[in-house]
Amino acid sequence: MKKIAIIVAGGSGLRMGSELPKQFLLLNGRPVLMHTLEQFKKAIPDIHLILVLPDAHFDYWMELCSTYKFRLMHEMVIGGGTRFHSVKNGLDSIKEPAGIVAIHDGVRPLVSIEAIQEAFEQAAEFKTAILSVASKDSVRVVEGMNNQSIAREKVRLIQTPQCFELGLIKKAFEQDYNGKFTDDASVAEAAGFSIHLVEGHYENIKITTPEDLVLAELLIKKKTAD
Amino acid sequence: MKKIAIIVAGGSGLRMGSELPKQFLLLNGRPVLMHTLEQFKKAIPDIHLILVLPDAHFDYWMELCSTYKFRLMHEMVIGGGTRFHSVKNGLDSIKEPAGIVAIHDGVRPLVSIEAIQEAFEQAAEFKTAILSVASKDSVRVVEGMNNQSIAREKVRLIQTPQCFELGLIKKAFEQDYNGKFTDDASVAEAAGFSIHLVEGHYENIKITTPEDLVLAELLIKKKTAD
Repeated sequence: MKKIAIIVAGGSGLRMGSELPKQFLLLNGRPVLMHTLEQFKKAIPDIHLILVLPDAHFDYWMELCSTYKFRLMHEMVIGGGTRFHSVKNGLDSIKEPAGIVAIHDGVRPLVSIEAIQEAFEQAAEFKTAILSVASKDSVRVVEGMNNQSIAREKVRLIQTPQCFELGLIKKAFEQDYNGKFTDDASVAEAAGFSIHLVEGHYENIKITTPEDLVLAELLIKKKTAD
Repeated sequence: MKKIAIIVAGGSGLRMGSELPKQFLLLNGRPVLMHTLEQFKKAIPDIHLILVLPDAHFDYWMELCSTYKFRLMHEMVIGGGTRFHSVKNGLDSIKEPAGIVAIHDGVRPLVSIEAIQEAFEQAAEFKTAILSVASKDSVRVVEGMNNQSIAREKVRLIQTPQCFELGLIKKAFEQDYNGKFTDDASVAEAAGFSIHLVEGHYENIKITTPEDLVLAELLIKKKTAD
């Protein structure tokens, strides 16, 4: 079955004076995004890689690929105004009639090869496969003015990749955009599909702050040392 | 009103060959626990500080206090077999008839002075005040074989300090121990008290892995530089 990955690196524009988006920052000497793309290639050697980037970042990315001699073949697709629209553009670009597609945050370069493989395998069986981890913290759920504790094992913090049967997720993304869509699983759920969770791992962090990048650096060095 | 803080640093024994518990590791050149105790002293200058430690750690802690010339006055209480029993020992040691007591993880040295003050103030008004933050990740709740998304703003990840009216929390800790008690708020809730949440902050991390310690180091240096 055809396996596809949409790596979403949309979002903030590369405006003058603004910070460099996290996906372009250096991790272990190379841009975050290159690590992310490589993990998918290592996990699934014949994967079809699609990178969704804002139009304004295309040239910069090509420059980085040249500087870092990044030869990994990938398709580039223009992002939209929201993550939903970026993913939709990625899905619309897929010409294959069937397959399994992973949707993944560009700023999660530490996802393990095993987790990627597991997500693809389980999506082939269950139609959806979403990486998630248990909360390490106690959790409370707010209802109106009150709140109550919830058993920690019932709470799953959601990561990516999120894998889907291609037809299913294309169908789900035919819906109108809704601000409640916080991830792709919530889009599929709103379209009536049930969501199958797969065990993720804590190292699969999303790099959104300068501290996250330092932590990622530590984790990647630890991994290399293992 | 009398203000008391129980700093819980119980847990793993200091056995030969085992790792040094995180509360004793050096953060910015001094043991984690010293930072934690100082934050409470800075927030509430006339606070009554109680440190709960396993019996086996007393001598080592005294040694550290001597080495690092740590002069901050605090009472020492022997911990129990679980966090619940450690907190209970701390509460039992309190002679004051009334007041507000904060219960706090020894390995959360980065709690801000403002958050501590806010928690004490709100506990004086609402009887309980529990630090919590919103989840940055999408969250799903598992029910049997199914799971569903939950609005992110309804989910609160719980931190410490957790502040309580002294009488209320002493009463709550008269209950028998239950494995479901993941924090002190859940003990109070099980005794029938309602829980008031207060805004915490993301820097207030719990140091449980070597990576957490490096992150804490970064955050404390950033704070000092501000």
